[in-house]
Amino acid sequence: MKSNTEQARPVITLLTDFGEEDGYVAAMKGVIFSECPEANVVDASHCVPPQDIRHAAWVLAQYWRLYPEGAIHVGVVDPGVGTCRRALVIEADKRYLVLPDNGLAALVVAAAKTCRFHAIHDNWHRPGPLSATFHGRDVFAYAAAVIASGAAPPDTFSAPVETIVTPDWAVCRSEEDGLHGAVIHIDHFGNLITNIRATDLGGYAPDRLHIQCGALHISGLSTTYSDVAEGAPVALISSTGTLEIALRNASAAQAVTSDTVHVFQP
Amino acid sequence: MKSNTEQARPVITLLTDFGEEDGYVAAMKGVIFSECPEANVVDASHCVPPQDIRHAAWVLAQYWRLYPEGAIHVGVVDPGVGTCRRALVIEADKRYLVLPDNGLAALVVAAAKTCRFHAIHDNWHRPGPLSATFHGRDVFAYAAAVIASGAAPPDTFSAPVETIVTPDWAVCRSEEDGLHGAVIHIDHFGNLITNIRATDLGGYAPDRLHIQCGALHISGLSTTYSDVAEGAPVALISSTGTLEIALRNASAAQAVTSDTVHVFQP
Amino acid sequence: MKSNTEQARPVITLLTDFGEEDGYVAAMKGVIFSECPEANVVDASHCVPPQDIRHAAWVLAQYWRLYPEGAIHVGVVDPGVGTCRRALVIEADKRYLVLPDNGLAALVVAAAKTCRFHAIHDNWHRPGPLSATFHGRDVFAYAAAVIASGAAPPDTFSAPVETIVTPDWAVCRSEEDGLHGAVIHIDHFGNLITNIRATDLGGYAPDRLHIQCGALHISGLSTTYSDVAEGAPVALISSTGTLEIALRNASAAQAVTSDTVHVFQP
Repeated sequence: MKSNTEQARPVITLLTDFGEEDGYVAAMKGVIFSECPEANVVDASHCVPPQDIRHAAWVLAQYWRLYPEGAIHVGVVDPGVGTCRRALVIEADKRYLVLPDNGLAALVVAAAKTCRFHAIHDNWHRPGPLSATFHGRDVFAYAAAVIASGAAPPDTFSAPVETIVTPDWAVCRSEEDGLHGAVIHIDHFGNLITNIRATDLGGYAPDRLHIQCGALHISGLSTTYSDVAEGAPVALISSTGTLEIALRNASAAQAVTSDTVHVFQP
Repeated sequence: MKSNTEQARPVITLLTDFGEEDGYVAAMKGVIFSECPEANVVDASHCVPPQDIRHAAWVLAQYWRLYPEGAIHVGVVDPGVGTCRRALVIEADKRYLVLPDNGLAALVVAAAKTCRFHAIHDNWHRPGPLSATFHGRDVFAYAAAVIASGAAPPDTFSAPVETIVTPDWAVCRSEEDGLHGAVIHIDHFGNLITNIRATDLGGYAPDRLHIQCGALHISGLSTTYSDVAEGAPVALISSTGTLEIALRNASAAQAVTSDTVHVFQP
Repeated sequence: MKSNTEQARPVITLLTDFGEEDGYVAAMKGVIFSECPEANVVDASHCVPPQDIRHAAWVLAQYWRLYPEGAIHVGVVDPGVGTCRRALVIEADKRYLVLPDNGLAALVVAAAKTCRFHAIHDNWHRPGPLSATFHGRDVFAYAAAVIASGAAPPDTFSAPVETIVTPDWAVCRSEEDGLHGAVIHIDHFGNLITNIRATDLGGYAPDRLHIQCGALHISGLSTTYSDVAEGAPVALISSTGTLEIALRNASAAQAVTSDTVHVFQP
């Protein structure tokens, strides 16, 4: 894993559940600019619901690949801070993720073509004492900054690992009777985002597959919402590459209460 | 309309009603930095009440001209996304606006000395598929970035148009008995901001005009709040160039329930 | 006091109680970029509870020193705007603060090794009329920008002053029976942050001092939360250098209703 020294203004995005009332985010930015004054720090969101790893994983999946190669995406939703959970640096399709090993990277890893995982050495942190509760500042922001500045290549403070935490909700199961997945996010239009990737559907014919989600039954995969009538159910591949279930110009979330999804082909 | 290649770090401001919980804003920024790594992206606000074009128009009017010439102001409050509403690039007093043609630019256009309107070609968007629901990312952010980078002059992806959508609330009516306007914004001090511009008052003598707003009657235009006693009503030209009705150190919004304003000179 | 011309991209952080719905923050940024296009403007927080100087003072204390030397920290929580309260430029350990003289700087000043105070000349403001209500834009943002750009050294628009407003809550009292302090902030974990600094405790032996806060009694100062059992009370020096009272992995705020703190050594 090499340093990110190609960019004049290396991008570092920040995703946290810290809210915006306190000085926590400002502290992370201070650590970054002290180490890497030329960094281009971007607020992704600090309004992730507290400790909601799955929500944060979905938000991260919306934007990580839209940034230039070399971009560093920091994610701090970290219920396990202070425990022995690992801190990771992941290289995914030439972007970096710096985040705790708790599933936050799961949807990026599911979507990426190539991934390399590194675990940051225990007790590695910015100079000075390590806070028991604020690794966002002392570990994650600092790690992003040293990668951005090129001061310390990731290999000097982390070691390769083979596997990372993959939560149940991150991937669907393939069984004899089809794919069994789950709704993992409801967006602000009420669309249901599932954990079934386009690649999981490789063995199915778009016009012959069936989707069951609670009482809702959909035949065939569409390419746009407007393939169906107003209010009618539609299934398509979302902008982040996973199966999405929607009602055209209406809220699927209000029509469906189940969060399990079954895809099958008779 | 020429490209914005004079600035080392072209400013792009973002105003949306996307909120801050999701990854939508971060996605827009990713598109911008991929196309124009040197951009100076500025969050104006992402907390516009959902689909409240008038509120957003007023917010935009607070800041657009304070930025250096060449600044690019993106506005995405876009209830008509996916319909045939046009996407605009407007050059107003040497700043750019990139936004849907739905009235969002109305107060800037009312205040600007010179304006040139361009409509972005239908179906022009960033490389890849066009989302039916996320033109903020695929059209507006991308258009701002290509203007900022100089990669594509606006003329290559847009064409001049003569008129744009001008909502009823944007301008007052001049009739025989005076000016008939409206309260279009209540600021956080309870001051009433109207759609009557300083220029609309050109034919009136500041010390002889009368203003009626609901039960409130004000004689003459003041220059500062302190021209009147505590709690007394006062009319002045606001920092954005329109007639404002206030109570000194009190809330006019609590005293007045009407949103029509009549200016006359006996 | 010299200008800040050493940095290629001088950092200016913004802390306000303006909220994020309106265009006020965007207006401040516009003023800054018009005066100093190369500024690196950082949102610290705009969600300080309205007019809550003490909250803002604590937030500022979390991050000011983490930024590189020369950083300019703007703070606008300003209930006295329009009155004769002074506007300050403070140099604290080689960082600048630009803020009203109302106690907002109190915790930085208490923590800094060296401080120099300057008061901005009355009626000094950006070119054009001075708004009676928006000194954040017309005075504070503009002052930060001219310091950042080097266009006007602070000495040209401000004069040294000896003392600034120091609110009661900023410092503890030392009396014969020990230190009498106060809880000045409750963080989002329910930890109680006090105004008793590590330096105030200089005459006390960490293992022999006693702390009384309401009904809660703690013997001795710990170095980390994990020095005590789950749920047990613990006193330690917080990451910002003041005495903190906590329950390990629980909320001290729910267990203690008093906001007075007494430190003594029998």
